Amino acid sequence: MLITLLTDFGEKDPYVGIMKGVIYGLNPAAQVIDLTHQVSPQAVREGAFLLQNAYPYFPPETVHVAVVDPGVGTHRKGICLNVPGTGYFVGPDNGLFSYILDKFPDASAREISNPRFQRPEVSATFHGRDVFAPAAAHLTLGEDWQEIGPLVPTVSLVRLPGLWPDWVEGPERHSINGEIVHVDHFGTLVTNIPEKAFEGIGTEKLATAEISIAESFKLHGLVRTYGEASKGELVVLFGSNGFLEIARVNGRADDLRGNSENSPAWLGQKVNLELNG
Amino acid sequence: MLITLLTDFGEKDPYVGIMKGVIYGLNPAAQVIDLTHQVSPQAVREGAFLLQNAYPYFPPETVHVAVVDPGVGTHRKGICLNVPGTGYFVGPDNGLFSYILDKFPDASAREISNPRFQRPEVSATFHGRDVFAPAAAHLTLGEDWQEIGPLVPTVSLVRLPGLWPDWVEGPERHSINGEIVHVDHFGTLVTNIPEKAFEGIGTEKLATAEISIAESFKLHGLVRTYGEASKGELVVLFGSNGFLEIARVNGRADDLRGNSENSPAWLGQKVNLELNG
Amino acid sequence: MLITLLTDFGEKDPYVGIMKGVIYGLNPAAQVIDLTHQVSPQAVREGAFLLQNAYPYFPPETVHVAVVDPGVGTHRKGICLNVPGTGYFVGPDNGLFSYILDKFPDASAREISNPRFQRPEVSATFHGRDVFAPAAAHLTLGEDWQEIGPLVPTVSLVRLPGLWPDWVEGPERHSINGEIVHVDHFGTLVTNIPEKAFEGIGTEKLATAEISIAESFKLHGLVRTYGEASKGELVVLFGSNGFLEIARVNGRADDLRGNSENSPAWLGQKVNLELNG
Repeated sequence: MLITLLTDFGEKDPYVGIMKGVIYGLNPAAQVIDLTHQVSPQAVREGAFLLQNAYPYFPPETVHVAVVDPGVGTHRKGICLNVPGTGYFVGPDNGLFSYILDKFPDASAREISNPRFQRPEVSATFHGRDVFAPAAAHLTLGEDWQEIGPLVPTVSLVRLPGLWPDWVEGPERHSINGEIVHVDHFGTLVTNIPEKAFEGIGTEKLATAEISIAESFKLHGLVRTYGEASKGELVVLFGSNGFLEIARVNGRADDLRGNSENSPAWLGQKVNLELNG
Repeated sequence: MLITLLTDFGEKDPYVGIMKGVIYGLNPAAQVIDLTHQVSPQAVREGAFLLQNAYPYFPPETVHVAVVDPGVGTHRKGICLNVPGTGYFVGPDNGLFSYILDKFPDASAREISNPRFQRPEVSATFHGRDVFAPAAAHLTLGEDWQEIGPLVPTVSLVRLPGLWPDWVEGPERHSINGEIVHVDHFGTLVTNIPEKAFEGIGTEKLATAEISIAESFKLHGLVRTYGEASKGELVVLFGSNGFLEIARVNGRADDLRGNSENSPAWLGQKVNLELNG
Repeated sequence: MLITLLTDFGEKDPYVGIMKGVIYGLNPAAQVIDLTHQVSPQAVREGAFLLQNAYPYFPPETVHVAVVDPGVGTHRKGICLNVPGTGYFVGPDNGLFSYILDKFPDASAREISNPRFQRPEVSATFHGRDVFAPAAAHLTLGEDWQEIGPLVPTVSLVRLPGLWPDWVEGPERHSINGEIVHVDHFGTLVTNIPEKAFEGIGTEKLATAEISIAESFKLHGLVRTYGEASKGELVVLFGSNGFLEIARVNGRADDLRGNSENSPAWLGQKVNLELNG
């Protein structure tokens, strides 16, 4: 059975390798896959977004472990979600699973409290190693998830605000207010504005949309592919993950405000899209 | 059976993890190995070079998936090469497999067209996930590669120019004109000038060679090992991958023009080597 | 059986993938786990420290391969340590295994000399591929470690100086002199001063300690958790790996001297801790 890992631990330290050591020590037949370990430090929102991009491509029964955990050592719960037909989600109750909870009303949740699913000694600072990795490993061993701990009503779990953009319908124009939730490897600014919400709206109308970014930069019109613009040009389009992105053809869009900036400076910046008619 | 992955996707996004999800979903017994995901963005040439450095160390029957794919969504083909006794190569027909085609005239190629070897829905932007990962997974399941799609004459496949340096024989000196094809983790500038071409030429002669880099920097003489030079010194030598490199002892050579520069600024820069006599 | 890899090779080149190709080519049932490949270039000391952080979380019989190897191609030995109940350690005899040798007086060591445990051709520059990867793979195949080569007295192996801090007891104060051995992904400065050495010393006393960093920066008092300080504040505390660290709450501590500096600039800088009474 597969286990995926998504963290903000980076690759410079052996933290991720240590989690794998714990997992394989418990279940030598496990198969662990890295989603990413470069979530911006403590960026729960970005982690939640990337997780919902990735999980649909894994087989049912996969155990997805996500650790972006600024509250480790406080009273925040460690939880395990069970989404029938989709898989398990293991990590801190801090909003990381907001998109999952939003999409699957039939998910159930348990607090990870049974010591048998944890390392004998649980530190105050590294629950990825001491709680989440062993819990995931035990699940892949076929142990009963009901023994992991008591049920927690999913309505009581932490959910991030602003998962989706606001959609304001006016008499003459629609206004969609989203934000930047991720800057990808190529410097593309990825928003939380989903392509699905535009079903039925024609390409021609989208080509006349007005886009403003971080309340400072104005762009005109969406394109369908990079091929429609010239090298170096900024374009707005729906990316392969199904969300609106601002990209630069053969370049980086995260240098919009001068030099290439680090992701945290972009995360949370507003993106507004105005559609006429 | 092994599958290797080489891309320009980086590690910041879950793209590579998603490809692995697709692969393990189809073949839970597959074993996937990352070659690198830090090919410079859209640098097909660099990807081709790194792939030919790596494939010889894998067992026969390995499926090598390479995705550096600026033309995704256009009419470029997705292909699968079969090199008897060496393995399969899966990716876009854009020159990524130039070194493989150059080395193995007995390779045969098929276009990936059979929907059974692809995901049900193929996007315009992420064939790594929708075409190449599933095709590779199906091959490791022992499915007949002949069913992947129609044969394509290998002479019709895209091949990059300048795979190898020009070798100009003069009456009194030889001139070898190559270029920088990769900057490695240590800041070493790696060229496409192969050690093999110098067989029979003595160390003493190489020690008197004149090297010019990017038409601006002159160096004198090749060394055999780093130990022959002092800390901080620039040296020219044949690296462990069998190609001429410009390195700085205990330092980086990519700061030759001032600050350490990003790889794309170096890729394609000319390296000229003059041998007397 | 598990194999871990710890190197300074980075992820930009296919070097690590090549080592895995060699391993899986010899033992298709091996399971390889990356500890980190971002040890600072040639920083044997940092590699030794990170290895001792990680190995305790792996099952007995794991083969730990570590390659930070500035002396490759010289007369330094390639060795394999056997630590009963803990595992094997494979790599160059240059001090990388200092902490292991320090902790396990019952370890025995052999020089890797049997050609059967190596690749047919051994280069002068890449023993990770040609010596250490194949040796590890053969061990996981259950081959007798006694055949790997002759016993080497562990007292003759290279050990780094200054593994642990100096502890100077005075009549009125204790002085602990350590150094920075690693800068982590979050920019935290990690020292070689172990929490264990402070057993029996109360929190209140630690809260009055005087800390000096790189002989330039003074901090007052250890905290127990990040929660005890405000955002942006520098704190001194024991990290999850059991060593004293200097961190900035919700920020990076490696910008202490201005801009964020690269790790090598911090490695080896002195950290002094004065305890009253």
